[in-house]
Amino acid sequence: MPPVPDAATPADPAQLLSALIRCPSVTPAEGGALALLESVLAPAGFMVSRPVFREAGTPDVENLFATIGSGAPHLVFAGHTDVVPPGDPARWSHGPFAGDIADGFVHGRGAVDMKGGIAAFVAAALGYLADRGGAPSGTISLLITGDEEGPSVNGTVKLLDWAAKNGHRFDAAIVGEPTNPKRLGDAIKVGRRGSLSGRITVFGRQGHVAYPHLAINPIPQLTKLIRRVTAEALDEGSERFDPSNLEFVGLDVDNTAWNVIPAEASARFNIRFNDQWTVATLEAWLAARLDEAAGNEIAYELELMEGASESFLTHSAELIDSLTNAVEAVTGRRPELSTSGGTSDARFIKDYCPVVEFGLVGETMHQVDERAAVEDLVALTAIYRRFLDDWFG
Amino acid sequence: MPPVPDAATPADPAQLLSALIRCPSVTPAEGGALALLESVLAPAGFMVSRPVFREAGTPDVENLFATIGSGAPHLVFAGHTDVVPPGDPARWSHGPFAGDIADGFVHGRGAVDMKGGIAAFVAAALGYLADRGGAPSGTISLLITGDEEGPSVNGTVKLLDWAAKNGHRFDAAIVGEPTNPKRLGDAIKVGRRGSLSGRITVFGRQGHVAYPHLAINPIPQLTKLIRRVTAEALDEGSERFDPSNLEFVGLDVDNTAWNVIPAEASARFNIRFNDQWTVATLEAWLAARLDEAAGNEIAYELELMEGASESFLTHSAELIDSLTNAVEAVTGRRPELSTSGGTSDARFIKDYCPVVEFGLVGETMHQVDERAAVEDLVALTAIYRRFLDDWFG
Repeated sequence: MPPVPDAATPADPAQLLSALIRCPSVTPAEGGALALLESVLAPAGFMVSRPVFREAGTPDVENLFATIGSGAPHLVFAGHTDVVPPGDPARWSHGPFAGDIADGFVHGRGAVDMKGGIAAFVAAALGYLADRGGAPSGTISLLITGDEEGPSVNGTVKLLDWAAKNGHRFDAAIVGEPTNPKRLGDAIKVGRRGSLSGRITVFGRQGHVAYPHLAINPIPQLTKLIRRVTAEALDEGSERFDPSNLEFVGLDVDNTAWNVIPAEASARFNIRFNDQWTVATLEAWLAARLDEAAGNEIAYELELMEGASESFLTHSAELIDSLTNAVEAVTGRRPELSTSGGTSDARFIKDYCPVVEFGLVGETMHQVDERAAVEDLVALTAIYRRFLDDWFG
Repeated sequence: MPPVPDAATPADPAQLLSALIRCPSVTPAEGGALALLESVLAPAGFMVSRPVFREAGTPDVENLFATIGSGAPHLVFAGHTDVVPPGDPARWSHGPFAGDIADGFVHGRGAVDMKGGIAAFVAAALGYLADRGGAPSGTISLLITGDEEGPSVNGTVKLLDWAAKNGHRFDAAIVGEPTNPKRLGDAIKVGRRGSLSGRITVFGRQGHVAYPHLAINPIPQLTKLIRRVTAEALDEGSERFDPSNLEFVGLDVDNTAWNVIPAEASARFNIRFNDQWTVATLEAWLAARLDEAAGNEIAYELELMEGASESFLTHSAELIDSLTNAVEAVTGRRPELSTSGGTSDARFIKDYCPVVEFGLVGETMHQVDERAAVEDLVALTAIYRRFLDDWFG
């Protein structure tokens, strides 16, 4: 366990972020980051729990749940301290875990994804509590996992369940992921597309290329199925969502020979889909087109992978308006209500309460020289603070 | 080196085959088979050479060249003593290298492919020479390799070159591969289709499935190219040849993730083609169709593999007629003049002299319980003997 960095000035989000970056919490390592948060939140009156979740075949993961106040309304801020690996540190201008503050930026792995969002929310909450004599008008909780960049098995899913079993009922959630493509204030995420992965396998009959009449080649048959399901768009998009999209990501044929017609060929795909679809309606759409292309000539199997997520759209006007107004008041820009991009832990939280996402600018996430502008950290802290004042007010 | 089995009665093709099978010459091992042939041929007056050929990256291979007589016409019998592995010996009714003669069959690996052909030709030649007082009216040679079932690098190709450099000029060749699908007398092979292998690679742009507008997915593009080149037949066949045929044998995408659009996708293919095509005209045919399907939208590369072979057709009426008449005289059936099936070392020999192929019934080749009927061995010996009488006569 590395020593917990000094966070003597937690109300300064840049200082707090720098201290968090100095905790090398490459997923699934805790790296001192949760201990640091506990050392900041507990003195401010938060009740802090550090549950560890385990499951066979996945790493054990430490998590943190901190709560202050009582009764409704109950706001939960959700985030993760784990980060993706930095790659070769020599390629970085500043050490990925040095936490340097220079040239107006806090440098390091996790600066925007998403230790910066956590630092800004903690700073905002501490300010809010200090101004109110230490207690919110309701409940504020932080739900922080160390398994967002990993398999997402021993993190938010289990932590939400744990919180529910411990009597916590949330009225709204903010996820602090970097939601702004270019500038702070670009976008709030008010939903996410769903994600479905699957595999199409065609069964032929193996044989020698010199005797094709004795074999059935599955490769041209598979290409026919692929062509069929990529021949038309799933939809045109909707008011809040981009068009749904199917991408083939892999082709698999177990054959290294040049003179053998293989027995099987398969294709792997992923669909990112909007609120016009569910996993069930997509499966039916795929099966209808595959059956049509296969006719009586192609023997195939459609297999859907575990872990699909449905799309969702948050409809809470109260939550969205409070956050939108706070963003506009601080940045002077009215954020787009977006549903684009990859998945996040919001897909799990949406089953418990309305959830929106807003954080820093994502441009440098997962890259060399990830960094957060100090002025963005200060502005994001001000946005979260305005939101707390408004939403609890 | 195993002991050389007893071949006290080489003029009996079943006994000689049994002795050859007892030499476990799984490619590239010599297994005593060439030593056995030398022990039979040298006493009959053949001058026997045993050149070993080597090349980096391939096993050293022993070969045999035996010759008797002088001057034209010069007939060469070509074959191989190496065999494919037997698999699990427990699955065989008779030990794969026991050489059992039972129930009218000689049992064991290589019985038909093609130690049986060699045994029949040796028996025929010894009988022919004995009846002629030990000398042919011309030259008879045997060109036997141990690298037909292997990479075919240190075998017939180098042995033909070696023979040419040693002053041997062949007027005709017989290859003793099993050419009969069901019954002795079904077919003589008078040519072979060519074989061309290649790879089509499509270059896309890698990206995340959630941001497809930033990526170019090569998989649907590759399927378009595959569909284009499989949309039409190469030809309808010709008098002596089956239709040419293109088969895709593999698909390769270097991606194990489900959320990544891969950078490249490739497809491997093999074409077996008749005398209407050459490697060059096939390449042009492929490139024209791929270019048409690719247009300006698909970046692809067509790569042809080393080791392609052109098709060939043997036109020597003298050679074909002599062998056809011999087959008909012994079996009562007029053999089909065939060009079907896989490749053989005849593809190398055809550059030196006219070549035809005739041997045993191939049904059990490369299988468990490979076996040759004793009556077929006797008949094949009689066919080769009639051919020798006729062709030299």
